[in-house]
This record gives sequence, C-alpha cells and structure tokens, in this order.
Amino acid sequence: MFFKVKTSEEVLEILKGFDPVGTEVVHIEDALNRVLSGQIVSEEDMPNFSRSSMDGYAVRAKDTFGASDSLPAFLELKGEVIMGGTPTDRVVPGTAVRISTGGMIPEGADAVVMIEHCQSMDDKTIEVCRSVAPLENVIARGDDLRAGTIVFGKGSILRPQDIGLIAGLGVETIPVYKRPTVGIISTGDEVIPIDLRPRPGQVRDINSYTLGAFCRQRGAIPMNMGVCKDDFDEMRETVGRVLNACDTVWISGGSSVGARDMTVKVLESFAEARLLVHGIAISPGKPTIIARIGAKALFGLPGHVASAMVVAEIYLAPFLSVLSGERRSSGDGHLYRQAELERNVESASGRDDYIRVRLNKREGRLFAEPIFGKSGLISTLVDAQGLVKIDRNTEGIYQGQTVEVMLFTPSRGEAW
Amino acid sequence: MFFKVKTSEEVLEILKGFDPVGTEVVHIEDALNRVLSGQIVSEEDMPNFSRSSMDGYAVRAKDTFGASDSLPAFLELKGEVIMGGTPTDRVVPGTAVRISTGGMIPEGADAVVMIEHCQSMDDKTIEVCRSVAPLENVIARGDDLRAGTIVFGKGSILRPQDIGLIAGLGVETIPVYKRPTVGIISTGDEVIPIDLRPRPGQVRDINSYTLGAFCRQRGAIPMNMGVCKDDFDEMRETVGRVLNACDTVWISGGSSVGARDMTVKVLESFAEARLLVHGIAISPGKPTIIARIGAKALFGLPGHVASAMVVAEIYLAPFLSVLSGERRSSGDGHLYRQAELERNVESASGRDDYIRVRLNKREGRLFAEPIFGKSGLISTLVDAQGLVKIDRNTEGIYQGQTVEVMLFTPSRGEAW
Repeated sequence: MFFKVKTSEEVLEILKGFDPVGTEVVHIEDALNRVLSGQIVSEEDMPNFSRSSMDGYAVRAKDTFGASDSLPAFLELKGEVIMGGTPTDRVVPGTAVRISTGGMIPEGADAVVMIEHCQSMDDKTIEVCRSVAPLENVIARGDDLRAGTIVFGKGSILRPQDIGLIAGLGVETIPVYKRPTVGIISTGDEVIPIDLRPRPGQVRDINSYTLGAFCRQRGAIPMNMGVCKDDFDEMRETVGRVLNACDTVWISGGSSVGARDMTVKVLESFAEARLLVHGIAISPGKPTIIARIGAKALFGLPGHVASAMVVAEIYLAPFLSVLSGERRSSGDGHLYRQAELERNVESASGRDDYIRVRLNKREGRLFAEPIFGKSGLISTLVDAQGLVKIDRNTEGIYQGQTVEVMLFTPSRGEAW
Repeated sequence: MFFKVKTSEEVLEILKGFDPVGTEVVHIEDALNRVLSGQIVSEEDMPNFSRSSMDGYAVRAKDTFGASDSLPAFLELKGEVIMGGTPTDRVVPGTAVRISTGGMIPEGADAVVMIEHCQSMDDKTIEVCRSVAPLENVIARGDDLRAGTIVFGKGSILRPQDIGLIAGLGVETIPVYKRPTVGIISTGDEVIPIDLRPRPGQVRDINSYTLGAFCRQRGAIPMNMGVCKDDFDEMRETVGRVLNACDTVWISGGSSVGARDMTVKVLESFAEARLLVHGIAISPGKPTIIARIGAKALFGLPGHVASAMVVAEIYLAPFLSVLSGERRSSGDGHLYRQAELERNVESASGRDDYIRVRLNKREGRLFAEPIFGKSGLISTLVDAQGLVKIDRNTEGIYQGQTVEVMLFTPSRGEAW
C-alpha cells in the first residue's frame, strides 16, 4: 500500500480531531495545573465590602482637603474598626475612625489617611498633615471582581493565583478534565526490562521510562505496559488489552522496516482501525505511524530514543493538550528562547529538521550549540536543553543567526 | 528594637544558609523533577555492544571502497543477525551479513551499508552501490557513555530523558532529596476558612491556597494549617506545633503594623529564635519577616496576596531550591522572556520594585503591559503572566524599553 508522507501541519491538524477524555470534580487543593471543564463564575462581589489597604484613619476625603504639615486638619477620633467586624461608628463631618489594613470602611468614610501622615493630639483628636482623595487607600467592594463575572473559561489551566482566586470565591471543588491515561508499549526482540542484565545484543528499555516521565510532565498518567516481542500475535493481544485500559496507546520501537510493517499490520487488524499517518516529513521521527481505533489514537513511535522524544515534543505534547481539554490564548504549549547559533547546520530540503542544542550563556548572550550525534544515543538528549527547527523550505541555518529554541520543559531547573 | 531593612541580595544570601531537608530513595518512575542527592555513575559501557543504526548489511568498510552504481562491489551473503542475539556469522573479507536497526555488529564487520544502497543478486550474493566509511551507520560500544562516567551530579533535577538514561543503565531506584514540607498558617481576625460564608468585614483565606499551590509547583509539600486569630497565645501554640511538623513555616497575614509586631513577638518567644530579616527593600513585599529557629526558617509574609506572591517568587522559590538540594549550572530557577514595555512606569529609588505585567503578542512582537492595582487585589495576579523588576537604582522604565519578564511558572499553558 502506498501512503504519502504527511507534513507536520497536516499531522497537527489530524490530532485536533480527537476529543478530551472526560471530566471529574476535584478539590482546589488538588487543582494545580488541572484544566477547567466548565466556567467559574463569581457569585458575589470580591471583596464584598470596602476595605482599608493601609493602617490609618477612615475619614471623609473632603475633611482633609488642603491639609499639610504647616496647616494640618484636626479631626475628632470616634473609635476604632474591629478587624473582621462591622464598624459601630459612623464617620460624620469632622471625625475619623482608627482602622487597620483590611478593616471594613465605616459608613460615611470614603478614604483612609495613612497613620504616618497623622499625629495623635490626645485621646480624642488627631492632626492630619496630608490630604487624601476619595477612595485613596481603599479597596472598594467589587474591585477584584463583580458578581456575575466569568472568572475563568473552560479549558483554562490553573496556576497558584488562579486557585487562590477560586478559593476567595468560596468554591472548594471544581469541574476539570480527567488526566488522560497513556498506555506505553516497548517493542523489539532486543529490548529487555530494565531489571534484567542485558546479554550481548540486548538493550534495556529506555523508551518506556522516557515517555512515561514525558507524560507525567504534561499532566497525563502513563501506564508502563512493559516490553513486547516483535511477534504479531503477542503484539496484537497486548495492543488490544492496552487499548481497552487507556485513552491512547503509544508503541515505541520498531526502528527496522520489518518491525514498522509489523506495527502497521497489528494496528490494521482491528476492525474499526483507520491508518491516519504513515510517515511524517520531519527528521528525526519520519517513521511515525498514527492510527485511529474508535475514539482513540494509537501511535507507532520510532525506536531511536531521540527520534521518539522529538516526535513526543512536536506531536504528542499538543495531542495530550487536546485530550486534556486545554485551551490557550497564545502559543503552542512550548516555551521558546532566542539564541545565536554557534555553528552552521545543513539540512535536506523537503522535511523539517529538528536539531538538539545545548544552551550556553556567555557575557549575557545566549548561544545555541548544535549537538550532532545519532538519534539512537540518549546522551545527545541529556546534553540538550531544547530543539531548533530548520524549516523544510530552508537549506540550512548559519552560525551567528538568531534562532528560536523550543525548550524542553525545564524541571524548575535551568533558567534561560 | 531598630532593625535595618535588608536588600534583596542580603536576603538571598541569608537564605543560602539553610540545608537540604534530608534524603530518601525513590523508584525512577517517581523521579520526574526530583533532585539527586548523590551521583549517578555508569557501571557499564552504553550501549555495551556495537549496534547498527540502520537496516542493511554489516560489512568490512574496506570491501566497499570505490563502489558505485556503475561499478558495484559484490559480496557474499553469509546470513542474518538475529535481533537480541549474538551473531553467529563472522564477516570475513568479501562477505556481508544482513542486519536490522539495533542489531549487534558481527565480529569482523566495522560498518553497515544501508539496504537502499544494495541489491540482492541471488540468495548468496549482494551488489553494493555505495562505499561506507569505517563506523558508518554503527553506534559503537560506549558511544552513549563509557563505564565509570559520572552521568549526573548531586543536585541535578531530573527530566524525562535523564530518567531514560538512568533506566538504560539498569538503575531502578535512586537517592534523592526529600521534598520539603511547608506549614502554611493564615492569620488575621478578619480571615475565615473558605467553606464559611463571610459576614461583612470578613474575607476568605486566599493566601493559604495560593501559597499551597505555589509549593506544589516548586516540588514542595504544603500543609495547610488553617486560619489563626491575631492572638499571641493561639499563634504561639500554632507556630510551635507547625514548626515540629514541617521543614519550614510560612505565616501569611498581618498586614497591619500591630499584626506584624505580633508575628515578630511570637517568633522571638521561642528559645533558639534569631530574627534574620525584618523588612526588605522591595515593593510590594517590604514587611517580610524571616526568623531562624534551630535549622528551620520561619517567614512572616505580607497579608496582601500580590505582595505575598512577589515574595514567594523572589525569595521562597530560591529558598525551596535550597531545601530541595537543587544545584543549577545556570539561572536563578525562573524563566525570563524579553518584551517591550507598553507604558512608562515610575519607581521610587532605594527599593526594587516588582510590577505585574500582562504579555501581549502583536505582529510577532512581545509586549509587556504593566498592571496597576493595589496589592490586595488577586485579580491583578490572575491577569499577569510575570513580573518586571525595576532596580532600586533606577527611577523608572520607559515605554518601548526592552525588559526581562520573570515569567510565573507556566502551567504547561501559555507559551511566550
């Protein structure tokens, strides 16, 4: 069967055709980085009373107009606002009430004079040496939010301050999209579980752990389904089982043509299967396979670990965003950083090349150093901080050129 | 007591004086973003045999020298390398052995000719139309790593590919620093738990949830200790209890001078207490208190949530790095992005000002729009993507100026 290699754009478009995996309700203490599956609407004004933002005296602004060090205003002290309570005193012309930061502005007052700008004359009188404008040092009712405001839309990814705001609204549990479960299968007669000692010709299963941690980093739940031999019956049985248990299946391995053909045969053996992608015009990562069975996507990923990681960053990250219901107002879910390329890099036209780069900072400038090395080597990924794309219409990029580095999600670690 | 306000640099230096909180052993499946407390040393060559990186024929490179389409080299086909096994055939001059990607290079061979460059004449003979150099299409033993190499140093924060490499070495469990536990106390007579309906004058406890999620984002374990009244005995009892249970104590609230003094009194009432910081030359966040009791740091954070978050980003993030044993080769643990300032911002000299900014992308350019608003408003944080520092020796920054935006840790969300 002839299958045309697809462009990156075509593949990304195909991946948008899947749906989020469902919803659940979580407590806000467990909501960091979760994705809202519904809106959050404010049911009340926030704050729901006017508060002082300073220690001082609640006053009528008018009573302070013209006040200065040489010509202070004298106000009668009428008491103090108790924190957490409703003020008992009203501020009438010529009076002031002592108030602390966060205290409720008493009726009649419309501003707060900072304590630094007042002097106590006696128990009953204060001298105000600075004028205040109406609402000065006051957080008015509804300043943060008005009742009825849509605070967060469906698809928002929650940060600490977002959770704080939701807490402030008194909302303890929220509807979110479920975290997608990813069944990861490693294939290859030469691949063995990591707890075994490889005999000559055998290698340990690196990909399951790399891809598993990649899933976690992107908010998904990996299920490591172990190593499967290059055998049609074994692979078909495994894929069927994983397909039932998980929201998506990632089969890694099969770098040889024979193994790749086997993966395709296994995927096509399912009744509902549709082969969506068989080869992508990128390097590394060309021999990537994507199939759809029912509502689920199955991926045949390159066996070379660096190829698999490039495919994961470029396609699986946005795919997990789709399954997770994420909606962004900007960007593609990756962080970018500009850097100067340290060496010329050639590229074959007709495919998007992704080169691994090490970032180096010298004299305040950021440089991207290409790491050359076979895509079977994981050390090239470990040495790299990100990827630089050489577009398929470009023949190469040159030393000194400014490039956009797609950063590997930094583990709150290196900052560039 | 007179206590000099400290500079940011002094505070950051003081925070380096604490120690990581201890170590534990975890499985590599739970190791994403964890911090190594010991080195990882490779005990074997990786790979531990020479492998083919292509489908093709293992040959002696010499036998292909000069081969071309018009003048191919003829080689005797001696069999096939079984994946995962030791080749039974030896490559002697004039012979080739069929090999798949990942297969073990047979004795005598030093290169692989890609299958695309060969033609099968009959069962016993192939035609090679391209010459290969020694080691071409071969991943040699030890190409990834030599035995004895220090792969990761103490303090490394593990990314997916790092975990993959460790898996490849057959290491299943690794020593890491414990995740620090953070006891979070909200104080204030006006603050109530979020499940209660506020009466006039009362507000819900926003800070505990904001700071709690901030801890999670930075790899720490928050323990929400609830709301404490502005009462010496209650606060002292609470702080004492939390101090025993957690690695560090964060008391948020006390925006009023009275409440702040109370926090200081409570901290100083512990026998071993040393007050390290009482006020920092930044805005917002000036009224920050740091004390040391035994090996633990206690923080009195501003009650205004935006102030508390600025203090968290600037001081608590690096402090958690110290407790977590993180060691960076670059940066301060924050991501930065350059943007053009959209408006003039004035600043009082003598303190570092941190302004909240919204990022806007227009025509491929990134703009930072200052968000003005009282630091008691959480909506200003929710609208912001990061902070811009105005150094204390600067009187302001101007519209059009390029600024470095310290990004709030993005939740794999917006990308700039």
